Amino acid sequence: MPQRAWAVIAGVGSGTGSSIARRFAKNYAVALLSRKSSNFEPIVQEINDAGGKAFGINADTSDAQSIKMAFEQLKKETGGKLAAAVYNVGGGLVKKPFLELKEEELEAAWGANGRGGFLFAQEVLPLLLAQAETSPQYPPTLIFTGATAALKASATFLTFAAGKFAVRAIAQSLAREFGPKGIHVAHAIIDGVIDIEKSKNFDLGPEAKISPDAIADAYWFLHTQPRTCFSQEIDLRPAREKW
Amino acid sequence: MPQRAWAVIAGVGSGTGSSIARRFAKNYAVALLSRKSSNFEPIVQEINDAGGKAFGINADTSDAQSIKMAFEQLKKETGGKLAAAVYNVGGGLVKKPFLELKEEELEAAWGANGRGGFLFAQEVLPLLLAQAETSPQYPPTLIFTGATAALKASATFLTFAAGKFAVRAIAQSLAREFGPKGIHVAHAIIDGVIDIEKSKNFDLGPEAKISPDAIADAYWFLHTQPRTCFSQEIDLRPAREKW
Amino acid sequence: MPQRAWAVIAGVGSGTGSSIARRFAKNYAVALLSRKSSNFEPIVQEINDAGGKAFGINADTSDAQSIKMAFEQLKKETGGKLAAAVYNVGGGLVKKPFLELKEEELEAAWGANGRGGFLFAQEVLPLLLAQAETSPQYPPTLIFTGATAALKASATFLTFAAGKFAVRAIAQSLAREFGPKGIHVAHAIIDGVIDIEKSKNFDLGPEAKISPDAIADAYWFLHTQPRTCFSQEIDLRPAREKW
Amino acid sequence: MPQRAWAVIAGVGSGTGSSIARRFAKNYAVALLSRKSSNFEPIVQEINDAGGKAFGINADTSDAQSIKMAFEQLKKETGGKLAAAVYNVGGGLVKKPFLELKEEELEAAWGANGRGGFLFAQEVLPLLLAQAETSPQYPPTLIFTGATAALKASATFLTFAAGKFAVRAIAQSLAREFGPKGIHVAHAIIDGVIDIEKSKNFDLGPEAKISPDAIADAYWFLHTQPRTCFSQEIDLRPAREKW
Repeated sequence: MPQRAWAVIAGVGSGTGSSIARRFAKNYAVALLSRKSSNFEPIVQEINDAGGKAFGINADTSDAQSIKMAFEQLKKETGGKLAAAVYNVGGGLVKKPFLELKEEELEAAWGANGRGGFLFAQEVLPLLLAQAETSPQYPPTLIFTGATAALKASATFLTFAAGKFAVRAIAQSLAREFGPKGIHVAHAIIDGVIDIEKSKNFDLGPEAKISPDAIADAYWFLHTQPRTCFSQEIDLRPAREKW
Repeated sequence: MPQRAWAVIAGVGSGTGSSIARRFAKNYAVALLSRKSSNFEPIVQEINDAGGKAFGINADTSDAQSIKMAFEQLKKETGGKLAAAVYNVGGGLVKKPFLELKEEELEAAWGANGRGGFLFAQEVLPLLLAQAETSPQYPPTLIFTGATAALKASATFLTFAAGKFAVRAIAQSLAREFGPKGIHVAHAIIDGVIDIEKSKNFDLGPEAKISPDAIADAYWFLHTQPRTCFSQEIDLRPAREKW
Repeated sequence: MPQRAWAVIAGVGSGTGSSIARRFAKNYAVALLSRKSSNFEPIVQEINDAGGKAFGINADTSDAQSIKMAFEQLKKETGGKLAAAVYNVGGGLVKKPFLELKEEELEAAWGANGRGGFLFAQEVLPLLLAQAETSPQYPPTLIFTGATAALKASATFLTFAAGKFAVRAIAQSLAREFGPKGIHVAHAIIDGVIDIEKSKNFDLGPEAKISPDAIADAYWFLHTQPRTCFSQEIDLRPAREKW
Repeated sequence: MPQRAWAVIAGVGSGTGSSIARRFAKNYAVALLSRKSSNFEPIVQEINDAGGKAFGINADTSDAQSIKMAFEQLKKETGGKLAAAVYNVGGGLVKKPFLELKEEELEAAWGANGRGGFLFAQEVLPLLLAQAETSPQYPPTLIFTGATAALKASATFLTFAAGKFAVRAIAQSLAREFGPKGIHVAHAIIDGVIDIEKSKNFDLGPEAKISPDAIADAYWFLHTQPRTCFSQEIDLRPAREKW
């Protein structure tokens, strides 16, 4: 029996990560990474109940040892072909005057975004490269979730911006290096409040939050682009967002 | 009988414009504008033969009178609902040392890109706004075709860059004004050589040119984005492009 | 008697242009272009009274014939060596909903910024190139005055942004072409309200407007940069500006 | 006797740091930080011999404890008023295929650029804020040395780009927060090879390297800008650079 292709998504909670998992699970088995099992359990169960295939694994993507172990397990369990990888880990979103920031807060933002993105990419790229040689239906894809703060560093969001600028650099450099090898590396600028559990009390009016399902559709679209037409960066915002 | 929704595409020749027409014709009647009938005749016939609905109209989009007349005719012929509009007119691509450039060459680039984009938008936006109030399946959409030269003005491509920078400004300003009114305005950065008749002798190696059909798919994807998740700018380039 | 080097400044009124003229007049004879004599007369007199050398000339920089005649006269009167040129012409700053804009308003913005910058550059670059061969104290310099609207096209400032994006493209392309020939081409992003007669009733609080004299100092600094260290783009804003 | 104002420069070797020290020593006492004494000894002696005042101090700016101790000593020795601070530390410039990069190489780039810039800013900003209240001749200034890699992440320069993107975010966020408090925070994009000992064998032709003295002049110019006209970002490149 041919092995099933799979997708791995790091950073899965109740929001965007779950929507991405749900979307990619229509075509692939999905492996979901999160620091807490409670983050991925509901969506793992939902996908499996619906006839898809999903499993979760605990991992702290900012930690080399943790991510290494997670991928060892993943490679064993999936035995399969990695079609797509999404680095959707955020973190470091602290709003504070600069002189009140602590070094640990900066390091947390760096670890979740910069170092984590780097470590994740080092695990997935060899797998994606191996796939690229097998003429898969869609080019093997690595997508990073970014934010407005990847382009504009606001006052009092310094740590988050430092992390998001860094992850944008990583995505851009990887796109230039691995594009010619047939891997699609993209970076998404999420510009606005995502419509998830945590933001349900932000009253911004109708249709003023970003739909996580629509983010997932955009990521899926990126994955389906052929090698003759890759997008490296895409912005996603509500029609009503001021920018 | 309910009227059919339509899409209008300005700048249709043998390349990208025809691919966009073909893609949008799967869902809409398509009206194609070009300065020469010979540009749109083949694709009009192809779409109609395949059971779609297409018609062409001669217009010089850089000329207010010409574009006004074209839209009067279009409104009569379609009687319908404008779902999407694409401004795909290029022009002004002259490679010359600056001191050899003529004022007319600058004006040609401005007319085709800046003024033309402006005049086209003034015709289509009232129609798109009217549609936005009818809860269409997809948000009414206006897409501008841009180029790398919209972001970076190279030596000896001054006129083209001036035109493409200007059209990017127009797209961006319109997105900010009309997004909150439910219209999706987007700008596509085409970065590379498009794989069309004119470029068939550029030997860049396999998969090194941009597929016009894939550009069309990207435009269609933009059109389908919901109001909770618009992309304003998207880059499109071959995996092997150096950038 | 050796001829005196001169500088030409297009767009001189009571504000930034006069400050630039005053600054450059410390080292050079200055020729000032404006559509109305009343714009340059006070500063011409002030400079000449103070022992400098200045003269004004009427010209509409958006008109090829007018600018050609102005430069013919200038070349005769100065007989001299062009050390620096500043294109400080604005125009097109209309704040209107897009559908109320008229084609003439777009063309006015284009003419003042895009076409005017192009025509001005075509006149001054041959003179600057001739100077570059004479080992002048400072590299021959061409500076364009830009605005925030050269980087970000806001809603309802479409015409101005289209003009300012275009002039930025022109400046950037010229920098790439003429830098290797020893000419310094720079673009200044003026981000905020300039502290001039016209803005004196804008009550923004202390030190919230840009000093035109400080803009002039920045332009002079750019002029003094050696060929081993050119700046192509510089932003200038009040410390208190929100951006 | 009134205390002398001083400037602190982190990252002083034989190149740009020494040029900046020499320039700022014309007006201030200068404190120079470097990991190795041999880096700052020659310029400290040169400045003191020439009648200026300079002293060096060993510090690893990527280490919180080290930088804290350095500033305790500095505050004691200078007793003075901090007029300007320059973060000129590089590091992380490794050219390697991504899959050969080690986590330590990424962390080295992050430490030198991101964390180091953060820690340095946390030490100098309280001192600069104290000065801002005393109406100094020039606004207290904090300048970060950046690179092309702060704007564009090339293939195989991933670690350096991640670090330089991050430091740009830090500079930009600080400019927005501290500008309104009278502090000038700027970021310089050094685009090209600097003409220093290490690069003397790069044969790029005449005037193709950036003069470190001219970089220093640009930093000094930034320092002299009044609160009514700050530049936040400046690019510095040789006239002949291709970009």
